[in-house]
Amino acid sequence: MTAVYYEGEGRFTLGAGELIPPGPGEVRLDVAFCGVCGTDLHIAQGHMDHRVSVPQVIGHEMSGTVAEVGAGVDDYAVGDNIVVRPLDTRGETAADKGVSHICRDLKFLGIDTPGAFQSSWTVPAFTLHRLPPSVDLRRAALVEPLAVACHDVRRGEVAAGNSVVVIGGGPIGLLVGLVARERGASVTVSEVSPFRRELATELGLEAVDPTSAELTAAILARTDAAGADVVFEVSGSAAGADVMTQLACIRGTIVIVAIYPDPQPVRLFDFFWKELRMIGARVYEPVDYEEAISLLAADTLPVDRLVTAVEPLERLPSIFATPGGDAQAMKTLIDCRR
Amino acid sequence: MTAVYYEGEGRFTLGAGELIPPGPGEVRLDVAFCGVCGTDLHIAQGHMDHRVSVPQVIGHEMSGTVAEVGAGVDDYAVGDNIVVRPLDTRGETAADKGVSHICRDLKFLGIDTPGAFQSSWTVPAFTLHRLPPSVDLRRAALVEPLAVACHDVRRGEVAAGNSVVVIGGGPIGLLVGLVARERGASVTVSEVSPFRRELATELGLEAVDPTSAELTAAILARTDAAGADVVFEVSGSAAGADVMTQLACIRGTIVIVAIYPDPQPVRLFDFFWKELRMIGARVYEPVDYEEAISLLAADTLPVDRLVTAVEPLERLPSIFATPGGDAQAMKTLIDCRR
Repeated sequence: MTAVYYEGEGRFTLGAGELIPPGPGEVRLDVAFCGVCGTDLHIAQGHMDHRVSVPQVIGHEMSGTVAEVGAGVDDYAVGDNIVVRPLDTRGETAADKGVSHICRDLKFLGIDTPGAFQSSWTVPAFTLHRLPPSVDLRRAALVEPLAVACHDVRRGEVAAGNSVVVIGGGPIGLLVGLVARERGASVTVSEVSPFRRELATELGLEAVDPTSAELTAAILARTDAAGADVVFEVSGSAAGADVMTQLACIRGTIVIVAIYPDPQPVRLFDFFWKELRMIGARVYEPVDYEEAISLLAADTLPVDRLVTAVEPLERLPSIFATPGGDAQAMKTLIDCRR
Repeated sequence: MTAVYYEGEGRFTLGAGELIPPGPGEVRLDVAFCGVCGTDLHIAQGHMDHRVSVPQVIGHEMSGTVAEVGAGVDDYAVGDNIVVRPLDTRGETAADKGVSHICRDLKFLGIDTPGAFQSSWTVPAFTLHRLPPSVDLRRAALVEPLAVACHDVRRGEVAAGNSVVVIGGGPIGLLVGLVARERGASVTVSEVSPFRRELATELGLEAVDPTSAELTAAILARTDAAGADVVFEVSGSAAGADVMTQLACIRGTIVIVAIYPDPQPVRLFDFFWKELRMIGARVYEPVDYEEAISLLAADTLPVDRLVTAVEPLERLPSIFATPGGDAQAMKTLIDCRR
């Protein structure tokens, strides 16, 4: 038993962990791998101390195996390979209008309740999705971010033949690009980092540097002067919020994936003039998890290339302590197996 | 023959007008009434001098009668009562993706080409919609703004039982409120002017003063804490752009009707958090004109109450010269008959 605890103010400690027997409707999991998410880095910078009760085990991009089954759990057995959809939606009310996955009293496992950066994790069985044999546990740690991308692309209603721009080429941006391309779209990623542009290119996505090229002109040139059918804002930058409406075609769609903490200047005139549509996308619904698992099972997306490091759980505190993170890192997986 | 000419820099002159024989595919109309639109006031303030070639007859909210028919026009005869949908979409290209009514090379009759503040007007026959006998010419001058409202409500997909907030209770805002209520929605209008709030109340719409009440709290109280299903931003104010996302329910819709000349701070976080949708709406499509005519024919909306004055064409230059407009005016119709 090992666990990494967030102690607040950006500090993490390695601890003994706790083996919690599953209650009714719960399962205890042996965690295999858990990816480091941008949200985890945000927590590690102390930006979410108002929300996270410490000490807290964080982490939510996990894969693992059922180790113990609580009373009343009939759908899963010890040894099953699974992933967890880390949303506890039991606080849903009528004011949420049936939109369970982002209900007001949503508890996010690994932020609001204990997470997966530990070798043993006990969760409600309704959060599980079963893995087919063709998806190994290491790759399965990508189900969560891939489900985010599936949700984003589904919300954006990307169709075959569409021109798509992804503003921001981090892990979610690149996965959005790959899923959109899988749907038959032609995809351009706008990204300032040369390392990330190179990776986007290796993945077969077109990449442009918005600081050296005039992005709007570049997109118009690629779309017979029409503009992009769907623009994903994944950068969270002021420049992205400014340019997103200019990139979109008449009646084009903008999907807000990034988390903007503060109000941003937006060209509302473009909404009027081109009858644009802007849609927010947050986390995922069960169908997105199933789609992500199917995509990994079909092995059509080069997602393994996104994994730039696999590190043991003991290394996690020092990974979080790296100032500004690793500029050459895309997705770091933590091996939690004991 | 009489016409009012815009001369630039906010100046108007009364002139003799010109009787232009209809060419092939055209009709010459005797103009009956023409409403004064916010856009006309904008032109009269000199704000659109970069776009309007002077001298120019403006005006586009008209009703009238066919006076003369050009070669090849088989659908209309002298004496037919009509309204003009003032969009010349013949410049449409493939880059407009079939969205004709807001194509890039759209010519707006009464802005980009001569308009209806004159007793005789010659236009392409494809811009006409026929009036049924039950819609008299005075009321028919409201077809154009009512078609805007029909378009806005259609774009917002307002459904029976929806909670709707209209930010801004001018002529378009009130018409949006009336059409949304006709669809079965419960409508609250947010408006700072006591005169406009009183008129909204007379029309049977609930009106709130956002400067004295906390608007978001008021809307939450009216919607069982859920927020509004559809929010129409018709005010063009910074306060409206700030509050619109806070008023909307989870997965709610915001319709941008107002023309914001400059980028505005928008709470993009709310798009992410509540998976909001924002849609731009501009002018109208033929179906919106047909719906507006049907609504007037059915006589179910108290639209006549919006007409606060009917003035002769000769008075138009002095109406445009009133500084800041008339605070007690809602819709002024100009009687262009000779």
